[in-house]
Amino acid sequence: MDRHLEISRRAQTMPASPIRRLVPFADSAKARGIKVYHLNIGQPDIETPEAMMAAYRHTDIKVLSYGPSDGLKSYREALAGYYRRVGINIAPQDLLITTGGSEAILFALKAVADVGDEVVVVEPFYTNYAGFAVMACVKLVPVTSQADNGFRLPSRADFERVITGRTRAIIYSNPGNPTGVVYNADELERLRRLALEFNLFLVADEVYREFCYDDAVPLSVLNLAGLDDRAVLVDSVSKRYSACGARVGCVASRNREFMHAMLRFGQARLCPPTIDQLAAEAALSVPDSYFQRMRDEYRCRRDVVCEALTRMPGVLCHKPGGAFYVVARLPVRDAEEFAIFMLDRFNLDGETVMVAPADGFYATPGKGKDEVRIAYVLNCADLQRAMQILAAGLEEFRRQ
Amino acid sequence: MDRHLEISRRAQTMPASPIRRLVPFADSAKARGIKVYHLNIGQPDIETPEAMMAAYRHTDIKVLSYGPSDGLKSYREALAGYYRRVGINIAPQDLLITTGGSEAILFALKAVADVGDEVVVVEPFYTNYAGFAVMACVKLVPVTSQADNGFRLPSRADFERVITGRTRAIIYSNPGNPTGVVYNADELERLRRLALEFNLFLVADEVYREFCYDDAVPLSVLNLAGLDDRAVLVDSVSKRYSACGARVGCVASRNREFMHAMLRFGQARLCPPTIDQLAAEAALSVPDSYFQRMRDEYRCRRDVVCEALTRMPGVLCHKPGGAFYVVARLPVRDAEEFAIFMLDRFNLDGETVMVAPADGFYATPGKGKDEVRIAYVLNCADLQRAMQILAAGLEEFRRQ
Repeated sequence: MDRHLEISRRAQTMPASPIRRLVPFADSAKARGIKVYHLNIGQPDIETPEAMMAAYRHTDIKVLSYGPSDGLKSYREALAGYYRRVGINIAPQDLLITTGGSEAILFALKAVADVGDEVVVVEPFYTNYAGFAVMACVKLVPVTSQADNGFRLPSRADFERVITGRTRAIIYSNPGNPTGVVYNADELERLRRLALEFNLFLVADEVYREFCYDDAVPLSVLNLAGLDDRAVLVDSVSKRYSACGARVGCVASRNREFMHAMLRFGQARLCPPTIDQLAAEAALSVPDSYFQRMRDEYRCRRDVVCEALTRMPGVLCHKPGGAFYVVARLPVRDAEEFAIFMLDRFNLDGETVMVAPADGFYATPGKGKDEVRIAYVLNCADLQRAMQILAAGLEEFRRQ
Repeated sequence: MDRHLEISRRAQTMPASPIRRLVPFADSAKARGIKVYHLNIGQPDIETPEAMMAAYRHTDIKVLSYGPSDGLKSYREALAGYYRRVGINIAPQDLLITTGGSEAILFALKAVADVGDEVVVVEPFYTNYAGFAVMACVKLVPVTSQADNGFRLPSRADFERVITGRTRAIIYSNPGNPTGVVYNADELERLRRLALEFNLFLVADEVYREFCYDDAVPLSVLNLAGLDDRAVLVDSVSKRYSACGARVGCVASRNREFMHAMLRFGQARLCPPTIDQLAAEAALSVPDSYFQRMRDEYRCRRDVVCEALTRMPGVLCHKPGGAFYVVARLPVRDAEEFAIFMLDRFNLDGETVMVAPADGFYATPGKGKDEVRIAYVLNCADLQRAMQILAAGLEEFRRQ
């Protein structure tokens, strides 16, 4: 092309997914015949519940038509029932079904903040928040949690230091991606007071609710007192039912004006996928034993990973209470270099491991440079082997 | 609530869907036992191809995992094959699968324009463009087409009058929603020259490609010479395969930088729904005879509607060449009043008709006040009856 028309500045600044950034190195390793254990992405290997997949197979729809913009009524009602069972009291009309949790977060950001407004985020955070912020033209302002204390919620003073007149909301995930931290009642109370005193929305990403181990308990933003006008829940079936490809999530709030805005955003994109909603509705019938088995399995995986990491010289890793991630501090200067080394120049008997450099989970430049996120989404035996490879790779990397 | 936290200004200004605005009146008519013929929404009654529905039923996926952010590779390749068959040469890597055409338009707007930039749109236009513009913080600038000439593309001078230094793109649908107009080669050439001379992207919504009647031919933006860096196609399976609830669309361009931005927007929301993409892929196997039958059916419907409208005193309606809509000018001062009258105060032997007031399809205040959009999405017999009711209602309304 002789002439070239430039795309918008926001499109130019839109970040690539740091989780997927190293995929070409993995592809090239595989092309060389190396087996790659993928610990870089939160894609569970757990089978989707049979009841959910059966709903696809039993589809008898003749005309696959638009559904309601706020989601299928039967699904919204059943979903309210699920929330009741986990102790969250929310009416079907205070729920809007979204196309994945992604859309829920994007809609929520747009509804709580205008262009140039600020949203405080606890870092490290789910990396795609950064992309959503660019798409919503909102400024993400980080408050940093620390590896040393297992990424507990930063202090009130830490929040006060970054809150300005343009701050409109705090967004956090609980249980946390990428840290796995599960906030306790004191921490939730700190967020509640901040929201009240500084007049902020509290946007809680609770997609890992069912992934809590030992005595960790997931506390919902919707159960915080006095926040009816400012508590926003975003959720998804992706992790809960190992159904990431279904793209069914939701946003919930008791703020009617907020929910009416959700509906109008929803009307613009017409509706979430119809049959996937029917499948998500079917998934709601899985017995508690499904989650119990899943939790047992993930607890074992977490233990394998955390215990192996703790044994590696110079590695810092607090065993987290939830989700299926852990952020580990490595004795390296640049974790991305290390991650690329693992794919590009290392293998143990023809096998290697892919991890996600953690700097992509921070908004503060330079933070997380010596950290990686490990998603423990493989079975315990594979994880044991992957940790062996990681330990050997780390040793080799440090020698060079 | 005593205190009340305000949502963002953009959320406050987000428009409700004008197509769905009158739904409460329809609901109330139905509650009174009135049968309502829905001509207000572009939801076809045509059955989704059996091959597509069978793909849902034959799902044998065990783990419903994330797909690639740009869509399933097999589907992108098959889709490129579809485009080849309809005379559009586009490589799979220049296609990104979206969650419906809605997401394609939203992504495209964000990538061609920054906050406050202007996008020229031919009005009347697909009403959801207005919502997408609010979501993308872009200003839609209308150039008005006229009922009197069947909504042909406005003149070059009309466009020049509204193009400013902030104009970044022209967006149009062809075949047109809500007008049904199919632009000819001269009209496309006018758009091509405008894009080149004023350095604009040309975003073409071609979701009604297969709905062309008589000798109307759908000309694609991707076949315009010299526009490789600025032609953007948005498309969807919703209308083509009567699969609005599948939420599978795409965006295509030969501008690599633009497509790379599409990928990064796509990565933020992870992926389009997986099984729906497999179903869309299966739909590509339908033989040409499927579209031929569909076209025959819709041509009959269009003729029923247009001929009936033309017979109504004072009604102006040019028979359009494509899509399944017609915008008719009625001999009334306020078409919304009339539409509400039809639902609220009129019935013919217990039946009435719902139409969409056309002012929601205009950005210029006051335009389209005496126009309605009629979607001919019912069978010919039902449409005949609906037109009888409409004629009687119009007569009654004018008497009062």
